[in-house]
Amino acid sequence: MRMQIGEFLIRRLNEAGIRHLFGLPGDFNLSFLEQVEASGTLEFIGNCNELNAAYAADGYARTAGIGAVLTTFGVGDLGAISGIAGAYSENVPMVHITGAPPLHSINSRALLHHTLADGAYGNIGRCMAEFTVAQARITPANAVTEIDRVLKACWQERRPVHLQLPSDITHLSIETPEEPLVLADPASDPGQLERAAARICAALQEASHPAILVDADAGRFGVADIIQELSEKCAIPCAALPPAKGVLDESTPLYLGTYIGAPTLEATRRAIEQSDCLIGVGLRFTDSSTSLFSQRIAPEALIALRRHDLSIGDLPMPGVTLREVLLRVLQDMPARPAKTSHGAKAASHPAPAAAAPALDATAPLTHATLWPRIQAFLKPCDVIIGEAGTSNSALGGMRLPAGASYIAQPVWGAIGYTLPALFGSQVSTPWRRHLLFIGDGSFQLTAQELSSIQRRQLKPIIFLINNKGYTIERLILGENSAYNDIADWNYAGLPQIFAPAGDALTLVVQDVGGLEQALAQAEQADKLVFIELKLPMMDAPPALPKFAGIFADFDYGECGPRNPSASQPAAAQDAAAQPAGGTPAKPAKDALCL
Amino acid sequence: MRMQIGEFLIRRLNEAGIRHLFGLPGDFNLSFLEQVEASGTLEFIGNCNELNAAYAADGYARTAGIGAVLTTFGVGDLGAISGIAGAYSENVPMVHITGAPPLHSINSRALLHHTLADGAYGNIGRCMAEFTVAQARITPANAVTEIDRVLKACWQERRPVHLQLPSDITHLSIETPEEPLVLADPASDPGQLERAAARICAALQEASHPAILVDADAGRFGVADIIQELSEKCAIPCAALPPAKGVLDESTPLYLGTYIGAPTLEATRRAIEQSDCLIGVGLRFTDSSTSLFSQRIAPEALIALRRHDLSIGDLPMPGVTLREVLLRVLQDMPARPAKTSHGAKAASHPAPAAAAPALDATAPLTHATLWPRIQAFLKPCDVIIGEAGTSNSALGGMRLPAGASYIAQPVWGAIGYTLPALFGSQVSTPWRRHLLFIGDGSFQLTAQELSSIQRRQLKPIIFLINNKGYTIERLILGENSAYNDIADWNYAGLPQIFAPAGDALTLVVQDVGGLEQALAQAEQADKLVFIELKLPMMDAPPALPKFAGIFADFDYGECGPRNPSASQPAAAQDAAAQPAGGTPAKPAKDALCL
Repeated sequence: MRMQIGEFLIRRLNEAGIRHLFGLPGDFNLSFLEQVEASGTLEFIGNCNELNAAYAADGYARTAGIGAVLTTFGVGDLGAISGIAGAYSENVPMVHITGAPPLHSINSRALLHHTLADGAYGNIGRCMAEFTVAQARITPANAVTEIDRVLKACWQERRPVHLQLPSDITHLSIETPEEPLVLADPASDPGQLERAAARICAALQEASHPAILVDADAGRFGVADIIQELSEKCAIPCAALPPAKGVLDESTPLYLGTYIGAPTLEATRRAIEQSDCLIGVGLRFTDSSTSLFSQRIAPEALIALRRHDLSIGDLPMPGVTLREVLLRVLQDMPARPAKTSHGAKAASHPAPAAAAPALDATAPLTHATLWPRIQAFLKPCDVIIGEAGTSNSALGGMRLPAGASYIAQPVWGAIGYTLPALFGSQVSTPWRRHLLFIGDGSFQLTAQELSSIQRRQLKPIIFLINNKGYTIERLILGENSAYNDIADWNYAGLPQIFAPAGDALTLVVQDVGGLEQALAQAEQADKLVFIELKLPMMDAPPALPKFAGIFADFDYGECGPRNPSASQPAAAQDAAAQPAGGTPAKPAKDALCL
Repeated sequence: MRMQIGEFLIRRLNEAGIRHLFGLPGDFNLSFLEQVEASGTLEFIGNCNELNAAYAADGYARTAGIGAVLTTFGVGDLGAISGIAGAYSENVPMVHITGAPPLHSINSRALLHHTLADGAYGNIGRCMAEFTVAQARITPANAVTEIDRVLKACWQERRPVHLQLPSDITHLSIETPEEPLVLADPASDPGQLERAAARICAALQEASHPAILVDADAGRFGVADIIQELSEKCAIPCAALPPAKGVLDESTPLYLGTYIGAPTLEATRRAIEQSDCLIGVGLRFTDSSTSLFSQRIAPEALIALRRHDLSIGDLPMPGVTLREVLLRVLQDMPARPAKTSHGAKAASHPAPAAAAPALDATAPLTHATLWPRIQAFLKPCDVIIGEAGTSNSALGGMRLPAGASYIAQPVWGAIGYTLPALFGSQVSTPWRRHLLFIGDGSFQLTAQELSSIQRRQLKPIIFLINNKGYTIERLILGENSAYNDIADWNYAGLPQIFAPAGDALTLVVQDVGGLEQALAQAEQADKLVFIELKLPMMDAPPALPKFAGIFADFDYGECGPRNPSASQPAAAQDAAAQPAGGTPAKPAKDALCL
């Protein structure tokens, strides 16, 4: 089938399930954009800048399964790269296409704009290769093989890929295969799959306290339902690491809540740490997932399932795919009645009170009064998005309604991510209610993307938590330092600026009564709702100050500014310093810090 | 002298002439920020996001000579990297400091937030190395040598450098040298300098039509005054490539204007192309500087001076520094009275009419009516900033008043650059009047940085050209394509949102009379002035449509969408396609495009 190269790329994106392309126009991608506009099957959605575009594609991918972003060479690619790296870090499949300079200019090393003007064209690709699992510069000769190879890698690894499409070849035609692109996980080795499943079933049946602990890959690889069924069939309690918030059904009695290492609720912690057969799904024990590596998982009790392999204790078993082994275990395990479940009931994660205790309507809004009310506001099938900082911290402790999804960026942790991610997610599912919780500091990074949300007439409910600066940083260091201050915008005025003819409901809430009214109005509004919540500067969900403190100790060490006696200015230390070549002093704690 | 590592870095930045540090806080840089805040000699200036921070540092460096930006590891670095690459492309010296994770976690390959959670810490440094001339990860052992090495390279190459400062070593003390850091260009080889200067003087004296053509390095390496003196002493006419706009005094009769290859004003073009001794300073013949490589410079007539070497015709002469050779030539050349100057008078760049011809006050605002009025509005010593697109195109053709500076990003060409760059430049010289001209499409990329300008109570005059989308792209391709549309903000309402208690003058101008009034008010206002200029969508300075057309031909080739007969959809082409293995058809133009 003869097609133009750009048309073939659009066809493959469609076959991969992609219906929307985020990004910005630039001279090197306009000829491809003409093809996109003509296609009728791939809608281009302009963003305000490239970082926002990458975040939007990431949010889209989290809800739709896979996403795509288009930039222009150099300036656009590097504008987007932090968002691409974030998708890598968070295991989000995303196709990054860049409109590259014409092939003839690359080959002749021409000194073009959007480059370093030194004739070198490899630098962008090398940077992108650090944060993508496959890359190609498309040519008429390699288009058919490279596009398919790269898209398959994107899906197989659920991570970003990078395609450079030179501007002068988009309209050249090539012979393409009739067969559609099929994205699939690789099949397991049948014998190995059999052996692995048998071992896992045996271990589960022998265990007195089996449990399941999932990480983000359980969602990305679409195995949450299988895990859920297995949990119910065999009465195995489940918990999630923070990046897997919302992946499992949090409304079932077998859901234990979030495991975050030492500070985990005691019953949940015991169920995971004392399990004699813990099925782990895609586990990554990062600092922020584990309250700084405070997880205590017995290695011999751990069956660690990964995307394409697994290990049982210290026995590695390559060639077994996550989905296949879970399906097989689900099929082979005998049902175990729920009443014999081991500790699940006891460990079950207590949902916060459905509504806040009755409070004076004039009581000031605080995290303590806010979040219980938000918990009651959540509905089944909501998409809830929590920005890094106080929002993600508070939402991480909530029990989500059935069918709800949760989007955050806990591993990469780039502030500002969630507003464009909200945009992307809602483009893919405009019919689902989307709720965003974002702090003022984070909001300022990507604020203009609100206008894209309005331009498309989407109707999320956005809660802007205005606590006058970077509260999460203040909790770590510099509570009163000027570097944690930001400009104090009239946030609630922005929707009117970004869409003067729009019809948004904007509210500013300062007290408990105002919150009640705002939520009631939001519930009824069939329009974008933007609620600015004014909270005290140093107020935070209860876990956050402690969490911030242990991070500060990790980051700055015993000689850092959290330990003033050790980190006095060097001038003051000089008096006590050893003369060069003198007898070394007895090592005392303070001396180590000189 | 014993100092803490962070204190030493601050000392070295101060000694390099840096008084302000742009950036954002993040947990890995807070301990350094505490030292910055305590220093009293280096002021931290918070930006809204990292790309804006890099642009601000770039703008600061262009006015102050050198700049610095602070980010946090991973997320912040990659957020800023397009701005860093821009500074490399445009030869702007800028120190990029990242607060890196604690050294112990790097060494133990800990799975931290802001990384790919795979234990790898080299990826950020490798990316930065693509766009910086020196890099180091600071340790207590290497801090003294590495900080100095990297800062010296920054200055020597007038390009960005990258320093990773792990968060746990900022407060450790080290023994540091008493001597201040001295940033200097390397000295020439004395004999080679002598020979080079003698050859250049001889060539200039023999020439009937000497001329000088400068590029951006003439400004970056601080030799504009020497060139100016040489020009006047010997009556040598001078022209500038577009990236050197504003570097030379454009008010002198020896100034020829901008050389842009074929479309250059005829007299200027002849003076450069027919010169029999053309002194080039840091020339880079890029696509956008030369209207797509249409320069016609005789290689045998060219004396190409570069930062640290030169060539005379095809004779390379390494080891001669730009400043030294120019000073020596200036000293050794005999004065030549202005009246014998060769063609300078004739070629002298005509200044546009000082004021627009009298027009009906209700005449709509167009580029034709706007720019002559702006020309008359410019004052000596203004800093004029022109965003990519219509603004830079129009301003490039103006004659700037004496002492005026011009800031644009013509090589890297990232839209959105100028608003944060304005912020940076004005921080370094708040006493100079700053004028920014920026289009609506570009403005949306970095709009929030307006709030930083207001927060610091700076008083630029900002002209927002609202032509409803990416007009420069529309001129290249897709005049009516949806991908070139953007949201239509109420731009003039933004200052009130970003600084509700602020005191900005905001105006919306639609016609010639309104422009006159707005300029009169701006002239008097001692506050930030924000003027939204409503211009027709496809209106542009006269050179731009032609320029856009030749770029489109270059980018998309003869089979691209600018040539519909060649680029008909592949389906329609199928009928005419050769069966595989059939006799090759006679190559016709259309067949090449199949």
